[in-house]
Formats: sequence, C-alpha cells, structure tokens
Amino acid sequence: MPNAKTPRILIVGASAAGLKAGARAARLDPSAAITVLERRTFFSYGACGLPYYVGGDVDDAEELRRTAYGSVRDEGYFAAVKGLDVCSGWTAVGLDREARAVTARRADGSKRSFEYDRLVVATGARARTLPGIELGEHVLVLHTPEDARALRRGLETGQVATAIVVGGGFIGVELAVALGDMWGCEVTILEAEDRLLPQMLDREMADLVSAALAERGVTVRTGCPVIGARSTEGGAVVEAGGALAGEPLEADRAVVALGVAPECEFARAAGLAVGRSGGLVVDDRLRTSDPDIFAAGDCVEVTCAVSGAPRYVPLGSLANRAGRVVGDNLVGLKTRFPTVAGSACVKVFDLNVAATGLSEAAAARAGLAARSAWGTFYDVAHYYPEVKTLHLKLVYERESGRVLGLQAVGAGDAVKRIDLVANLLRRGGEVAEILDLEFGYSPPFNAALDPLHGIAATALNQERFAIPGIAPSAEPEGRLVLDVRRPEEIAESPSGFSNALEIACEEVRARVAEIRPGTPLLVVCEKGPRSAEIARWLQHRGFDDVAFLAGGISLRTALRPRRTG
Amino acid sequence: MPNAKTPRILIVGASAAGLKAGARAARLDPSAAITVLERRTFFSYGACGLPYYVGGDVDDAEELRRTAYGSVRDEGYFAAVKGLDVCSGWTAVGLDREARAVTARRADGSKRSFEYDRLVVATGARARTLPGIELGEHVLVLHTPEDARALRRGLETGQVATAIVVGGGFIGVELAVALGDMWGCEVTILEAEDRLLPQMLDREMADLVSAALAERGVTVRTGCPVIGARSTEGGAVVEAGGALAGEPLEADRAVVALGVAPECEFARAAGLAVGRSGGLVVDDRLRTSDPDIFAAGDCVEVTCAVSGAPRYVPLGSLANRAGRVVGDNLVGLKTRFPTVAGSACVKVFDLNVAATGLSEAAAARAGLAARSAWGTFYDVAHYYPEVKTLHLKLVYERESGRVLGLQAVGAGDAVKRIDLVANLLRRGGEVAEILDLEFGYSPPFNAALDPLHGIAATALNQERFAIPGIAPSAEPEGRLVLDVRRPEEIAESPSGFSNALEIACEEVRARVAEIRPGTPLLVVCEKGPRSAEIARWLQHRGFDDVAFLAGGISLRTALRPRRTG
Repeated sequence: MPNAKTPRILIVGASAAGLKAGARAARLDPSAAITVLERRTFFSYGACGLPYYVGGDVDDAEELRRTAYGSVRDEGYFAAVKGLDVCSGWTAVGLDREARAVTARRADGSKRSFEYDRLVVATGARARTLPGIELGEHVLVLHTPEDARALRRGLETGQVATAIVVGGGFIGVELAVALGDMWGCEVTILEAEDRLLPQMLDREMADLVSAALAERGVTVRTGCPVIGARSTEGGAVVEAGGALAGEPLEADRAVVALGVAPECEFARAAGLAVGRSGGLVVDDRLRTSDPDIFAAGDCVEVTCAVSGAPRYVPLGSLANRAGRVVGDNLVGLKTRFPTVAGSACVKVFDLNVAATGLSEAAAARAGLAARSAWGTFYDVAHYYPEVKTLHLKLVYERESGRVLGLQAVGAGDAVKRIDLVANLLRRGGEVAEILDLEFGYSPPFNAALDPLHGIAATALNQERFAIPGIAPSAEPEGRLVLDVRRPEEIAESPSGFSNALEIACEEVRARVAEIRPGTPLLVVCEKGPRSAEIARWLQHRGFDDVAFLAGGISLRTALRPRRTG
Repeated sequence: MPNAKTPRILIVGASAAGLKAGARAARLDPSAAITVLERRTFFSYGACGLPYYVGGDVDDAEELRRTAYGSVRDEGYFAAVKGLDVCSGWTAVGLDREARAVTARRADGSKRSFEYDRLVVATGARARTLPGIELGEHVLVLHTPEDARALRRGLETGQVATAIVVGGGFIGVELAVALGDMWGCEVTILEAEDRLLPQMLDREMADLVSAALAERGVTVRTGCPVIGARSTEGGAVVEAGGALAGEPLEADRAVVALGVAPECEFARAAGLAVGRSGGLVVDDRLRTSDPDIFAAGDCVEVTCAVSGAPRYVPLGSLANRAGRVVGDNLVGLKTRFPTVAGSACVKVFDLNVAATGLSEAAAARAGLAARSAWGTFYDVAHYYPEVKTLHLKLVYERESGRVLGLQAVGAGDAVKRIDLVANLLRRGGEVAEILDLEFGYSPPFNAALDPLHGIAATALNQERFAIPGIAPSAEPEGRLVLDVRRPEEIAESPSGFSNALEIACEEVRARVAEIRPGTPLLVVCEKGPRSAEIARWLQHRGFDDVAFLAGGISLRTALRPRRTG
C-alpha cells in the first residue's frame, strides 16, 4: 500500500517516454508507488531498430528488447531493477478526470479501474495508413516486432524478390535500403510529394538521396500518391496517381511506411486538449491541459525551436529525454523540456543524410523570409586518405541572419554538423555565430576550417557582396558560364554547360580582357569557394551581374543518378 | 601604387593566420594593397599534416602545400587568386612603430624597409627544445617539411628501426603512431609528466592512451624528463631522469616533440606586450598593445573560455578562424574573436582521443573547485553491429554546475562529443544543459540517449544523491564490493576485486538481506549506470555509505595494458 504522503503514479504506455518517466521518478523517490499499464505483452523494444532487424543488421527482434548487458526488459526486470509495476495486456479505454481513474480492459474483456494522483499519458503512436490501403497478407506496415517478423520471414523463405515501399519518409528509405542491401530485393519507393524525405529536405538535397538509391538499383517514383493497395494471391498490387495513374504496380510485398500518428484516444475523449496533429498539447513541463496529467513521447506535440509553433516530432530520442523531465515533475521538481530543433538522420547505403530545423520549403510555409546557401566540402583535411565529401544547405532568415535550418548529405559526417547547428539554432543563433564554433582539429578528424565555417562564410558573403549563389540544378539563363577550374578538373568532371568559357582561377586576373564588359556571368568551379572568390573579384572589376554556382559542379553532378551494375 | 584612401597592409608570416587575414581583407576591399613577408621560400603548407607524411598517409610533402583542387599555394597563386603580394625569403628583423615600418633581411644579407598603415604579425611558432638537446643528423625536430623529409628518408632507406620520441604531447603521440604503424619501428615515448597528453587529459584517461600504445608495441615511459640528446655515429643517445636516470637510451633516431613556442621576437623587441607564454597579448579584435598592429595564430595568446585567463593554444584551426577576424578588422569591420575552449584531438591507432576545456588537474591549477564524473557508453544503438565504446570524463564546477571540461577516449566518436561540449562551455553552460542537447537519432548514428546525456545524468545524480562515483583506478578501501552484473558478464570480464559479493541487479531487491546492514559498499557493474542505480536503491534501504565504480569494470579494465603480438 502506498503511504498517504506518496502520490500514486499511474503511467499509460510502457515505451520510452513512460518507462523513463517511471524509472526517473522511482530513482528520485524510491518509496513512490508507480504502476504502468501497457496494452501489448511484448513491450519496451527499440522500435527504431525494426528496419535493421528486417535488413539483417540485427539477428533477432528479441535483441531490440534487451538492455545493452543482455537483460530482457520484461515485467520482472522493471519490478526488480526499476521499481515499476508493469501491468501488461491492459488497454486504457477510459479516463475519469474527476474520479482520477483510468479504466482499462484486457483481451478477455475483463475491466479494471486504476486510480491515480498523477497520471502520465505515454501511449505513443500508431502507423499511418490511407483509406484505400487494405492491410493483409502481402500488404504490411512496419510498426511492431510482429510486423517485422512477418516481413523478414517472407524474405528468409525467398518469397520476396520484389517490394513496393509506400512512402518515402525516413522509415521508407531505411526500409528500401534494408530490402535492397541485404536481400537484393527489387524495390520501388512511391512518394506523393515531389521528393523523398519531404519533411527533412528541400528538392535538390533530396535528389542527392534519390540519385544514391537509383545507383543501387532502387526505383524512386516521386509525385505518385498511393490511392490503393491490396493483397493478391501471390503478392500485392498498388495503385498510385501522378505518372503512375492507371498503371497498377505489382510486387511480392507492399510495405506501408507513411509515418505515424498520435495514439491517445482515451485521453482526447476525456477532454484533454489536442493539437492539429492529433497529439496532446503540453506545456514546457510536459503537463497537459489537466495539471495532474503529464504526457510525453509520440502522443504529444512539441514546440518548434525555430517557428515557436507546435510540431509533431515522433522520435525515440525526444521521448527518452522527455521521460526524464516528466519523472522530475512527477516528484515535484520543476524541470522544463526545451523547444525542439527537429533533427533527423538516415543512412542510405554509404550516404549520410541529416537535417535540423526547417527546410527552405518549411520556412516558407511558416511565413519566414528565408534564404539559402549551398556548399560542397571535404569533411576532413583534404590530403588525408579517408577524406569524404559533404554537401550542405544552410537556411537562414534574411533580415536577422538567424539560422533556420541545415541539411547535410554526403559520405562525410553529416550528423555531427547537424547536431552542432541544432543546438545553435535552438537558442536563436545567427549565421555569424557558426564562424565562432570551435572544433577539435587533427587531420583524421577535421579540416582546419570545418564545412560549417565554410557554409556560414558562403552565406555571409552572398549577403554582403550581393553575389547570388544560384541553385545547383538551375540553368545559366542567359549568363555566360565561366568555368574557373583547372583543365585536369574539367576533363575529369565536365560541367555539362555548353559554351562555357574556361579560364582557370589562377589566370582570370590576367585574362579578364577576354570577357566582354557588361556580360552577365555565372562563375562555376568544383565545390563553390573558388567561383565565389572570382565572382567577387569580377564584381570589383565592374561586372555587376555576376553569380556563382552554389555547391559547384560536384553538387550539380551528384544530382544526376548514375545507375550502376 | 595604392591610392591615398586605401591603407597599406603589411602582413608578416605567410601561414594560416596571415594568409587568411590577407585574403579576407582583399575580398572585402579588392583595391587594398597587401604585402606579405615570409622568411621561408616553401610556405603555406599544412603543418598539422607532417606526422601523416612521415607515417605514409600522405605520399609527398608537396601535397600539404596544394589546395584541395591541386593548385600549389606559391607566390604566383596568391597573387593571381587572392590578390596578395607575397615576398618570400624575407625575415622581419626590426619594427619601427613610430615610422610604421618593418625591416626585413634576405639570406644574402640585403635589407629592406616595408612601410605599413596596418600591420599583422602572424609569425607563428618555433619548435621547443631543451638546453641539453643537440639537434643534428640523428636528433631531429618535426616542424618543417624539410624536417619531415629527412626523417622519412631515413625510414624509407631502412636506416630507422628504432626511435625515441621526446615528449608525449599530441605531436609526440601522432608521431609514435606514424612510426609504429606504417614503418614497424620500435618506438619509445619519453614524457616528463606522470602521464601522456598532460595538457589534454587527466591521469586515468591518459592511461587509456598508454594502454592502447602498449598494446601495439609502443613503449611509454612517463615521469622521465629528458635532460640530454645527441647524435652518435649510427644513431642517437638520449638521457632522461626519473626511472631512467643513469641509463641512457639508444635508438636510430630521436625526434624531439616538445611542442612549440611563440616566434615573434621582432615584435616583442619593439615593445608590443607579450604574455607569460611569450605570445603577443591581443584584445578581442586581435589588436596588440599597438592599435595599428594586429596579431593572430601561433604567436599570440588567446583567452580561455573557462578561466578567462590567457592561454597559449597553437592550433591551425584557431589560426584560420583568427585570420578571418583580422581580415575583417583590417578594413574597419569590428568583428570579434571569441574565447577559446581549447579543444584538441588525436588518433591513436583505433582509439579516438579528444578533450576540451580544462582537465581536472588544470581546473585545480586555475583555482576552480572541480568535480568529475566518469562513464563508459556505447556510441550508437547497442544492437547496431558497428557499436563502439566511449569513455568520458566530465569536469564541472561543484557549486555552480558549470561545465569546465570534457575528456573522451574510445573507439567511438569522441570528437563529436567534444565539439558539442566545447561550444556549450564556451558560453558558460551548465551540466543540466547537456541533458537538453538535441541529437539526430537513427541507430547507425546514435543511441536514443547520447553518451553526453548519460555522463550529464551521472554527474547530476552523484550531486543530488551524494553517491560518489569512485575513480576507475581506485581501490575499495574497506568497502564491500557488490558486483551487480549477470554471471555471464562476470565470467567474461572478471572484476579483479577479491571477495566481491555477486548479486545480479535483477536480484538485489530480493536478496538485500544477504548484505549486513551498515556495511560500506562499493557497487560495480560493466559500464556504470546499473551500479549507480542500485547504489541509489541501497541508500534508500538504509545503506548510508555507498559508492559506485565510475565508468565500470569496462573502464577499469581498459586502464591495464594488454600487450599483444
């Protein structure tokens, strides 16, 4: 029996946020009575690992439920190690806020009421789907270990040689990689938007991902919203719009990866405020509209650090951090949960893809006057053997210089740069502050100036000198293309521009007379900095309509898929 | 001829800081007349790459002087691309501040005076040595490409099978790796302090590096200050103190790697203020005590972000950033150079070693009341196949909770964590703010909670619950050791403690009666978190003298060298 002074804590949902909240509260107050209701019987698994189980990086879905030292996180573990009473197989179906009680039901139909002094709603999310999609034997979602086992069984028994992935968000892309890389499946991704990863990336950066997938044999069809899917005798048939209208696709399996939606019906029905996403509204101490009820994880909306608006960001990392904040508040500490930059990352074969804050498209939707800078960089000292390339797109507010977002794609370490900028933009940092970032420096780990310094300088220079960096996929539109690379570079990687004037940057000052005064110019080089530098000098020499190719030929070329093998 | 309105800018030193300052000023004001004096004729090379040239990662020292796209950064390059007039072979020997002129001399004895309106001193550093060391055929420093070529020639011609590295700072350690890894040399490092990398690391973290070197056959002798070195007919003989007193060591080569000292005699002689390190004193716009004279790079002192005191941090990364700030100020922009966290990193075979801010030892020297937290973590999701280990030591101010420094050693990504904390401590961030750091999360890139979240929680918990995490090398000193690992873990990695009581964490609550009330306890586990958690519960159960082993058996074991091969 809990004693009179110790609040009865009830947590609904035994996943990251709920269990972390409970464990933290128990650590702070080991005498607290903490009950956790969980509708599943297999719970507390690393859901983010499911694509890696499908792809074979993880041998057994059971591993996703083990601690790093091998204990299974079941009811006994949570009781013995964390001091939590997990009641599994109980689905919360009702909430009586006046009586402070949650009604829960078991599979056998039996019901029970659980009373609380403090309640935590941590019911997570459900897989999104669409009206025309009939889930079934060959049309699956990937949300639970059972889903993943069913898909993997089909792969292991050789029943799945072709697959359609419905949705090109990061789960869809991870899944396409898993199916293609390990199992050699012929995979097609269908995405309704005009690009992959539309929540993370703008068009050009997304096209880098499409190109990398195409190179490894994955077919990407963007602008093709799925309108129906069903199982047939031997497989699945999927109907989509756009360029695929009227041409149903067939495959051994269709996997629906349309993201997730908040799952908190019992709480919503009791009148707790929900936002546009359907997620519970919480304050900065993660209290719902009822001050005795907290909520965290994939069932809530968080606050976007950039726009200040509510944003739905269902990620295990945020759920874990939020759980700790709820645990503190459950026992009376006034810990706050910060605003969220919305960082995301995904590995696409050898390409690292990451983003934080708002894309240029998302900034425009949020009503912000955004500008962008592109750049291509080496991630470590250029003479170090393992040097790799990184393409960056920095989005900033034109007037204030405030950083709005960063996208990073390349074989180099994209995620580190995203993490640094995420934590700068979380506090309203400006582009110029990126120049002040300090990096540990040694040739295997970094260049003397980091790619972030480079992209910040590019952005600041394009504002100061009013020399636009034109989008990597744009056309010269009447400008004379001046390619300032060395002849060897041009031979190795042709620009693709017809009628380009080729003058290596070392010779531009001496040969400037070859360019007719007043000619509108587009200066191009391999990665961007040289052309920006020469453009600045040409501007000084009186060419007042001069631009450079942002990110260089390197980025422009990477946008074109090169199908191999 | 420069026009009347354009200041004549004179820069002494054509290395990172000076050239960056000049190039930036020229970009901002393309009409500026900018002259650069440089005493060498081979200049603008990536000095940080010299150990990698010695080790063979870089084929030719000339590569260190090329741009990423292959241009040689010589006088012609800087004139044609950057608009700088580099006069090489001119050594600055005098400064007349009243006349605003620098006197310089050539190798042939000829002299010339260079007038300026704005002067930049960017003369860099010289290799430090000691009175008893006679540099010569077989006793070398590694400071210039010529030094590196001489050493590599000896290696390539098979003359160097054994080598002594004098100094265990980061150049010494890089060099030992280069000599051992590529060339199979038998290498001995001699270090005066009680540990390697004494500027970066505290004792235990440094011992991880020593253990890694010992495993690969490098002999590390700490506490052995070198008192003399000279060339003999076939090699070098080195005399040291400490345990080596009276036992001179012989080897084919001795390489002196005692770090660098500021090189700015002509400026110091003209009365510019210098600090304790001998480096020029500059303000936050990098002006020396003469407002028309700027200085940057390895010849200046910077301001420590943690202590606010001057600090000598000769790193190419800072020099590059400072150069840009000087360039801005040269043309009238009031850009400031921020305080410096002092991040450093070095690759030691497969071990990544990095640090920022102050070590516990340095904090004590600075008069700060520091506390530390240790921890061992996985760097990505524990079920991901390429998961690696990372040991962290967080140093913080006890009263304020302000972060003072972080040390990170392991096969995992140490540098990313250092970079994030460097930029948090640069603005006075507290330990609790580390919990708010947002990370891009996906199993190949991160765990749901980052190691930084883990180490911050460890630090906060040890303060809140007053449960000390004892140093990884410490002994139980009368405490009963309670090993809460699973039997399989204990079998695989014995704790080394005699008479440990073994009760897996899952069983502690049920078997607590086996521990006599009042027994002082040291709880141990593999990495730290479990033992901290159990210690907290035992404290609640009335054991009021309970500690846990910080960083776990994993860290303790890694401190012991395991010589292989």
